[in-house]
Amino acid sequence: MTDTPRPEPEAIHAMMRDFARFGATPRGGVHRMTATPADGEARRHLIAWLESRGLRPLVDCVGNVFGLLEWAGPEAPLVMTGSHLDSQPYGGRYDGTYGVVAACQAVAAIQDRVAAAGLTPACNFAVVSWTNEEGARFQPSLLGSGVYAGQFDADFALSRVDGEGVSLGEALQAIGQLGDDPPPRFPDAYIELHVECGPCLEEARRTIGVVRRHWGAVKFRVAFTGEQSHTGPTPMPLRRDALLGASYLIGRIRELADEAAATLYTSVGRIEVSPNSPNIVPARAALFVELRSPEPEALAWAEAELRAAMAAAAARARVEVAIESESRRPVGFFDPGLAALASRASEAAGLPPLDLETVGGHDAISMLRLCPSLVVNVPSVEGLCHNEREYTEPQDIEAGVVVLTTMLWELCLGGGLAPPRAA
Amino acid sequence: MTDTPRPEPEAIHAMMRDFARFGATPRGGVHRMTATPADGEARRHLIAWLESRGLRPLVDCVGNVFGLLEWAGPEAPLVMTGSHLDSQPYGGRYDGTYGVVAACQAVAAIQDRVAAAGLTPACNFAVVSWTNEEGARFQPSLLGSGVYAGQFDADFALSRVDGEGVSLGEALQAIGQLGDDPPPRFPDAYIELHVECGPCLEEARRTIGVVRRHWGAVKFRVAFTGEQSHTGPTPMPLRRDALLGASYLIGRIRELADEAAATLYTSVGRIEVSPNSPNIVPARAALFVELRSPEPEALAWAEAELRAAMAAAAARARVEVAIESESRRPVGFFDPGLAALASRASEAAGLPPLDLETVGGHDAISMLRLCPSLVVNVPSVEGLCHNEREYTEPQDIEAGVVVLTTMLWELCLGGGLAPPRAA
Repeated sequence: MTDTPRPEPEAIHAMMRDFARFGATPRGGVHRMTATPADGEARRHLIAWLESRGLRPLVDCVGNVFGLLEWAGPEAPLVMTGSHLDSQPYGGRYDGTYGVVAACQAVAAIQDRVAAAGLTPACNFAVVSWTNEEGARFQPSLLGSGVYAGQFDADFALSRVDGEGVSLGEALQAIGQLGDDPPPRFPDAYIELHVECGPCLEEARRTIGVVRRHWGAVKFRVAFTGEQSHTGPTPMPLRRDALLGASYLIGRIRELADEAAATLYTSVGRIEVSPNSPNIVPARAALFVELRSPEPEALAWAEAELRAAMAAAAARARVEVAIESESRRPVGFFDPGLAALASRASEAAGLPPLDLETVGGHDAISMLRLCPSLVVNVPSVEGLCHNEREYTEPQDIEAGVVVLTTMLWELCLGGGLAPPRAA
Repeated sequence: MTDTPRPEPEAIHAMMRDFARFGATPRGGVHRMTATPADGEARRHLIAWLESRGLRPLVDCVGNVFGLLEWAGPEAPLVMTGSHLDSQPYGGRYDGTYGVVAACQAVAAIQDRVAAAGLTPACNFAVVSWTNEEGARFQPSLLGSGVYAGQFDADFALSRVDGEGVSLGEALQAIGQLGDDPPPRFPDAYIELHVECGPCLEEARRTIGVVRRHWGAVKFRVAFTGEQSHTGPTPMPLRRDALLGASYLIGRIRELADEAAATLYTSVGRIEVSPNSPNIVPARAALFVELRSPEPEALAWAEAELRAAMAAAAARARVEVAIESESRRPVGFFDPGLAALASRASEAAGLPPLDLETVGGHDAISMLRLCPSLVVNVPSVEGLCHNEREYTEPQDIEAGVVVLTTMLWELCLGGGLAPPRAA
């Protein structure tokens, strides 16, 4: 792996700064939720960049943005790389944006080297930015990659509504990003660079993390239904308070994490209460519950406990309860071949890699249904993620792009993937 | 009290139907929160009606709407009657609207009789619709009457913001209801007709309730502050979940009602969570807490318990907590003289009255600071209030207006008030 192309550090940082403008917050983060005007600006900036580098931009029917570099002929393998440009509310400027910028800059470095050296590339490339990775404005998360990978129907995805009742389809239409391009064919490998959401690299003083496993997750929207009444005159025994039932469940969900036999993370990040007026007994309270674990047995146990706790909380508050929607992501493993390639590339850069696992979701998990897929991490200071203070040191930003470029370069020269799944 | 004017039943019901159109919901209620476009429509309809009957409309600096009938000369006593046109979210069409309609129709009946009989009235009248009685969109409740009565500064009221950050002043401006008329001078009596928020009249099979006492209330906005982080990778012991702390407190607040030595009603009707995203540990959760009791000692006990519970909930969830705002309404009594007048008027109509107390607030409580003040109730089926299914039988609607008309008539002829507080 000597003589690999070197990405241009200044170009990387400049492109990071460019994207940080779209939805910039006063505290240095970004507030760029899926299919908002700020997301539209970021998408147009990406498309303009793809065009400027001769990559063919495609926007598919759920707004996934691809940039195709078909320079090795239609029979050659396709390597896809990228991440997502949407953010959490008041989130960080690194997160998925880094994976998109890294993909662009790595491919650009390879383009320049191939042109300068007069080489013949052995594979085609696709840069990608997936729609609604975060699951913040629309649920579920990993929606764009899930449609591409056949996990969800496009109609399902486009009909998801945000908290205001606006559908993803309407929102994409409004920002001019509801495309009709056929997406690229399924790739032969998918690589996603991402800042680590957690402190492991920083604690181990390593720069490159190779993500070997992803935790399983079970996500529910649990709705309590009581009866609207006046908080003044309604006698206490007659009240049917949906928020009270929800509160009992939130406390119990936290306890599950302590009682589980294996590692279990639990959370309620969002609550929707109606009418949500200071002097009305709430008629409805919907909770967004997540259970996450590396152990399938722990997840199954937690789900059973959750269902029992729902019934107990509802009975105690004299309200009804039901699961309104659910999504499941089983525990899984990323591709060992790509992981070995990442480790070699990291070592070649003088950076001993660290094996990691990821608790959160990444679009690379959707892609595991289609092809060898991998997530590569660089450190995030204090392990922050989904936070305006998210920060990665410039040399770590650069190192990640170097490793990605090295990986793509080996694939480009015909190594690493054996044999290609599609011809 | 023979020969009293009779309000016109059809006019009463027609006016109720008119107001029910503004902010009408598909289920037969109204969604007409303070200073929304629907509220603006209702206000303009009232003002047009006042003008049509020769009452001089005034809109003061916080949007209170008055209709003045100054037919007895500037030295005569002033009797004020009315209620409010704003509603809770998806509330009922009766509620405060009934008190405004009753005031209009009672005064109209007296106008007609005075004109027909060539009589000389002994007092002036003011019909009133107060701004933001409900406290649903803006807190605190009873805001317009509170400003009129000197409890709040106008600047304080106008700077209250709703959940979207819009101030009352901006909202009133937007619907053209930020007035600059000086309001009428303080009245010598205030009477407010309202549907009962509770089942006592229905259970006792009575039509007219004379409200003798109002409960005390203490209202707090309690804010928990944690730290925003990813619900995926953040280890459970490191999480500082504001919603979890809030949930612990909600459960404890419910328990206080059972543990109190006297009658105590407790509630959390509204919660505001930030960022409120499914996969982010909540950084902030603000609760709108109410404690209500007829006994001052029980309120003081509950407040002390609440403060202890706040600290315990925050410690348990590893977050911070603070009271961000508070409002207090001491236990109080309505005017016995006006209550006696209401009882006589009810008996004269062949309706034995029932003495009641009110748990919820009414603008008549603000007016107690200024003059003799009273609330008169008619039944609400099933005791419903702040509910789209709110309903009062037509004959009860009519009976309430008859009693109000009789009361105003006695005052108009110079009886009932002895002596007038202002000349």
